[in-house]
Amino acid sequence: MTGMQMPSGVHALVRRTHEERVMRALQENGAMSRGEIARVVGLSRTTLSEITGHLLQRGAIVVVDTDASRREGSGRPAERLALDPASAQFMGVDFGHRRVHVVVADAAHEIMVSGAVRYEDTATWGTRTALALELVDRLSGEAGVHYGALQGIGIGVPGPYPAPEGAAWPRATAGTTVLRPAPEGVDVAFAERFDAPVIVDNNTRLAALAEAISGADSVADLVYVRLSDGVGGGLVVGGQLVTGSSGLAGELGHVTVEPAGRPCRCGKRGCLETVASVPGILAACWEFGLRLENLDDLADAVRRAHPVVDRVLREAAGALGRVVGAATMMLNPAKVVIGGEITRLAPVLVEQVAATLAAEIFPTASAGPLVAAARLSDDDGAIGALAAVFHSSPLLARYPETADVKGRSDAPDSATEGAAHVRP
Amino acid sequence: MTGMQMPSGVHALVRRTHEERVMRALQENGAMSRGEIARVVGLSRTTLSEITGHLLQRGAIVVVDTDASRREGSGRPAERLALDPASAQFMGVDFGHRRVHVVVADAAHEIMVSGAVRYEDTATWGTRTALALELVDRLSGEAGVHYGALQGIGIGVPGPYPAPEGAAWPRATAGTTVLRPAPEGVDVAFAERFDAPVIVDNNTRLAALAEAISGADSVADLVYVRLSDGVGGGLVVGGQLVTGSSGLAGELGHVTVEPAGRPCRCGKRGCLETVASVPGILAACWEFGLRLENLDDLADAVRRAHPVVDRVLREAAGALGRVVGAATMMLNPAKVVIGGEITRLAPVLVEQVAATLAAEIFPTASAGPLVAAARLSDDDGAIGALAAVFHSSPLLARYPETADVKGRSDAPDSATEGAAHVRP
Repeated sequence: MTGMQMPSGVHALVRRTHEERVMRALQENGAMSRGEIARVVGLSRTTLSEITGHLLQRGAIVVVDTDASRREGSGRPAERLALDPASAQFMGVDFGHRRVHVVVADAAHEIMVSGAVRYEDTATWGTRTALALELVDRLSGEAGVHYGALQGIGIGVPGPYPAPEGAAWPRATAGTTVLRPAPEGVDVAFAERFDAPVIVDNNTRLAALAEAISGADSVADLVYVRLSDGVGGGLVVGGQLVTGSSGLAGELGHVTVEPAGRPCRCGKRGCLETVASVPGILAACWEFGLRLENLDDLADAVRRAHPVVDRVLREAAGALGRVVGAATMMLNPAKVVIGGEITRLAPVLVEQVAATLAAEIFPTASAGPLVAAARLSDDDGAIGALAAVFHSSPLLARYPETADVKGRSDAPDSATEGAAHVRP
Repeated sequence: MTGMQMPSGVHALVRRTHEERVMRALQENGAMSRGEIARVVGLSRTTLSEITGHLLQRGAIVVVDTDASRREGSGRPAERLALDPASAQFMGVDFGHRRVHVVVADAAHEIMVSGAVRYEDTATWGTRTALALELVDRLSGEAGVHYGALQGIGIGVPGPYPAPEGAAWPRATAGTTVLRPAPEGVDVAFAERFDAPVIVDNNTRLAALAEAISGADSVADLVYVRLSDGVGGGLVVGGQLVTGSSGLAGELGHVTVEPAGRPCRCGKRGCLETVASVPGILAACWEFGLRLENLDDLADAVRRAHPVVDRVLREAAGALGRVVGAATMMLNPAKVVIGGEITRLAPVLVEQVAATLAAEIFPTASAGPLVAAARLSDDDGAIGALAAVFHSSPLLARYPETADVKGRSDAPDSATEGAAHVRP
């Protein structure tokens, strides 16, 4: 807070608090009308107009367009406000097993650049990181954009993402903050390169967050499962991504569904992953004499309504439905989302999960959760990483105050000492 | 915030923020040494000493004792600080099926009065509420204490506690705030009577919160299950009690464990409750020819190491272990707590849950959650309700500002350090 010119008195404090809530709502949600902002931050239209008036005047926010194109019915179109798009950039990076995706968005949540580069699945983290940084440069050069006001970087990595034992969290690096340490220093490489805070998490969990907050019907409680080479999951509870006591939360794929089932790569037997992952589904088809090599073969068999495939998919979805049923009894989510390319190829999966889930929950529960296929594709992991950045409280955009914003310290404990030097 | 005498400038704002964090830590945790406070709120010892000096001088906090009696090893005993005990009271109320417990604690978390009164399980909520209010009056009269500065009331009620459809939340009543509407207006009755904010929740969930935060080794992520006439549960995730999208979270007792099992009162079959509740365990003993009528009979059979009882208890605990195993893979809790009187009578339950759980989680997870019997008994529900009040952010004690701090010359010397900076 050092370096801010703050008018004295309680009125200024209250206004500042209101302003921060408006700025945060715009950072989290992108462009919104005044009515939407008032609802989200819980201010009256009158108070809100005063606040947005100040912010518009200072250039902290701008009018980006009207909601005419999105509006249903008649009535005067409302202006949509957003953080000044040029005031900040946010980067999302998604490291998959064989490629990295990068997106950069402006403060109004518009994607400025986006791209991907492939690597071998044997590539080291050093190689992956170098390729990702080159990609960022190339995208910047091609589009003629600069990341001079990069506010935060979200990075998704594959696999469970536990905090290593004894790791300091958060750890500071290069004058900035890395919220959780990442494999082989990918976090430090990005933080140093862009001098911006970095968030790293498992990319399936980031996808869960993106599903929870994307669109107009965002939900605070969501169970997300992704079926691919493995079965990953992510939980959003009370609007927050659940990490667990040692970063291992969300492993729905390793809940036991068949105690005497196939061995799982995790060392257990009969995990959900052994029956509901793509390899698990293909293996079950083989057991019934139907040899399918890959997803394309499976899609073809689904189109031909092959009875073995239908049976295998329904059994896999039944097991998945029992696991998300247990999750639903525990967490009472508003929505259950099933992701992974296979759910697009085989809609029966989501149908059967919904049917099994309905049988697993309280008959008295008037309405169970909505069960739906993922909105974002597996290639949208970088959007999930971006969502995490937009939603992370330490990363609130530093918006223009009356004077400069230089020389501020982010270290909470030094704030007292520092503040003593800037009294007006 | 209006009406406060607030010195101008950033320094005061920062100090105020630090003070609020210290006050909140003391409200949530009761008496603590300066070292403990510094750790919890993340301030340096120097900054903290300045803050506690201000607060001691104003009388907002007091020195209650030293930690000599709790301290291991040698070294000078540290003073323990707390909110001024007389500055506030907090009430916990636990409505069971056949009795209501009430406790009132002061701001230092010391229990001032405590008592219970019984009713028939057919008693209406009107009767129960009237009996509870009479009990509060009687306790007050007997102990000669008054609730003149009651800051909040926590009320536990049995059974699932969903927010009724369409209910406004929070709803205002009698110039105060009821955070969630309760059965038959018990919330409104207490709020009107004491003019204090009321929190209502399922009493098993409140017990979960109390287990998570009680003692020196509080945890932020906890799975709680209580075995009694039914099987109830509560989840604490990231330090917050999980309610779910419609207030139904925590129903671990109705996760299906035997698809073809006994019918459950919820309308499903083979719920965990049908095998791990006390009636479920007694029924299973009957099926093996051992007729036990109640918990006393069961305790007796456990003492005699009856093989049927051992087998039934291990099977019940195995089913429970699989459910908390699934919960553990999803939520990665630091601790799993099993409550209910039966866990005290039959320690084998907790042992078997721990063994089954160990087999259900990642072999690679270096350490699974601690599995333990509940610290608080079923009769301690009012303590859970109290914990919810201490932890509820809207209920931060209104602590004395510059005005009402007269007659406080007994502040220890160490507290005067920062006094010169306090503006009158």
